[in-house]
Amino acid sequence: MIAQWQQQYGERINAALRRALDRLDDLAPGLRDAMEYGLLQGGKRVRPMLVYATAGLHTDSDQQAADAAAAAIECIHAYSLIHDDLPAMDNDDLRRGKPTVHRAFDEATAILAGDALQTLAFELVSQSGDDLPAERRLRLVQELATASGYGGMCGGQALDIYHEGKPVERATLETIHRHKTGALIRAAVRMGALCSPAMQETELAALSRYAEAIGLAFQVQDDILDITADTATLGKTQGKDLAQQKSTYPALLGLDGARALAASLHRDALAALAGLPGNTETLEAFAHYIVQREY
Amino acid sequence: MIAQWQQQYGERINAALRRALDRLDDLAPGLRDAMEYGLLQGGKRVRPMLVYATAGLHTDSDQQAADAAAAAIECIHAYSLIHDDLPAMDNDDLRRGKPTVHRAFDEATAILAGDALQTLAFELVSQSGDDLPAERRLRLVQELATASGYGGMCGGQALDIYHEGKPVERATLETIHRHKTGALIRAAVRMGALCSPAMQETELAALSRYAEAIGLAFQVQDDILDITADTATLGKTQGKDLAQQKSTYPALLGLDGARALAASLHRDALAALAGLPGNTETLEAFAHYIVQREY
Repeated sequence: MIAQWQQQYGERINAALRRALDRLDDLAPGLRDAMEYGLLQGGKRVRPMLVYATAGLHTDSDQQAADAAAAAIECIHAYSLIHDDLPAMDNDDLRRGKPTVHRAFDEATAILAGDALQTLAFELVSQSGDDLPAERRLRLVQELATASGYGGMCGGQALDIYHEGKPVERATLETIHRHKTGALIRAAVRMGALCSPAMQETELAALSRYAEAIGLAFQVQDDILDITADTATLGKTQGKDLAQQKSTYPALLGLDGARALAASLHRDALAALAGLPGNTETLEAFAHYIVQREY
Repeated sequence: MIAQWQQQYGERINAALRRALDRLDDLAPGLRDAMEYGLLQGGKRVRPMLVYATAGLHTDSDQQAADAAAAAIECIHAYSLIHDDLPAMDNDDLRRGKPTVHRAFDEATAILAGDALQTLAFELVSQSGDDLPAERRLRLVQELATASGYGGMCGGQALDIYHEGKPVERATLETIHRHKTGALIRAAVRMGALCSPAMQETELAALSRYAEAIGLAFQVQDDILDITADTATLGKTQGKDLAQQKSTYPALLGLDGARALAASLHRDALAALAGLPGNTETLEAFAHYIVQREY
């Protein structure tokens, strides 16, 4: 079932990203090419799919705002990967089996492409969704900014770098993940929800619990796959966490312990969806997918 | 007179930046320190002062929104300097006579500090100014994003790098400056104006012409100072443009020609202010300052 959603939403997000890129004029073609390369070279599109799936809970959701939110979230995700891959950060040559942006272009272009993709995210989310009240559109901007900055993704990345090569406790590992990857997954779900004028705050709170559970489960599963999957399936170097002495859930809890944690988070996610109005089938399917995926 | 404004507005912008930094919790202290270092190590604060001066034209301007806009613009400016100074970009060791962020900290932290400062800008401008209608606050976000991204500062920076070491025509040089530095100066003036609910679109258009003129004049004067001022006065390496074979206005027009252009842009700026309601004295003083400054 997830394959069907991936295809349906995958086409929609690619079209939304294509429209966003087509708006860029010929000012700096090299920069635009690098932004496009970083944005369109594939990927699972988990975050945009969560925007669409959550926006789909209510029939009154503003679809233009959902497209903007989905594209914006993917711009933030793409920028973070471009910067994370830089020599001064993870120094990765490959991303999804293809040269990273600074390898395909150069370092200066990769830095700027990341910078400009972050800005593009805020352009998209502030300029779309005319039918949605301005208060709501402003709140979409706030959600995106809060999740991406010091108190979210950037701070989590800094914390991760700070602890590299050092043993960390489980609480610290969770703090890293809740910020580095969890914050943006949470924002994807919340921004999708905010596209509906009818969305109630109680629903938003339940959806946040769902998002926090699947966000952490996603990371636990990533850690598990780094050990169990091979490099070809993964599209990145297998065993890299171990080689870099990164703290992981399997390292802290054992492989079985990590699998039990993923299963427990999966249950938390489904429990959070119980009682929500609308059809939560897609969100349930995502929860299944996240703990069952093999790459 | 400009010294008086610089002191008055300088204290106000520093207080606004201080408040923005104080909101950051203890998640990643090293990253916070680098953001603070990049943001608070001085600088002329030209852009925030333009926000305040323009917001001061109307008595109904939302002062909280002006503070947020001023701080946000300075966050964008600071992030761009941090990234421009990186080894893969300009590879500068000094900024305003002090070690650049990647020298005082490290490259990874400098990349992240720039990233997080950009996000902080959008957090500030989307979360402040409750008394301003949401439509206006959304427009502030749009102005900031448009000026900072591919179609503004980032694109101008990419274009500048692309033409490095190559001879460029005057039209190309102007395109570079209008984007790389002009767009943010224009945004500073327009965002200050948008803090007033009473501001009319015709006023905004006149203020945009003013901003475009002083923005370009600022760059022409920078080029002149690179030749005429000494390193100690400038706080950066004198003659660097020449050493890097950068195209400059003095190189294209001669020193006298560049001075004549600065004077002409100065007149354009003053002409744009004529007929505006409110007291335009401060904006006039800024126009004088920009072409008369010696560092």
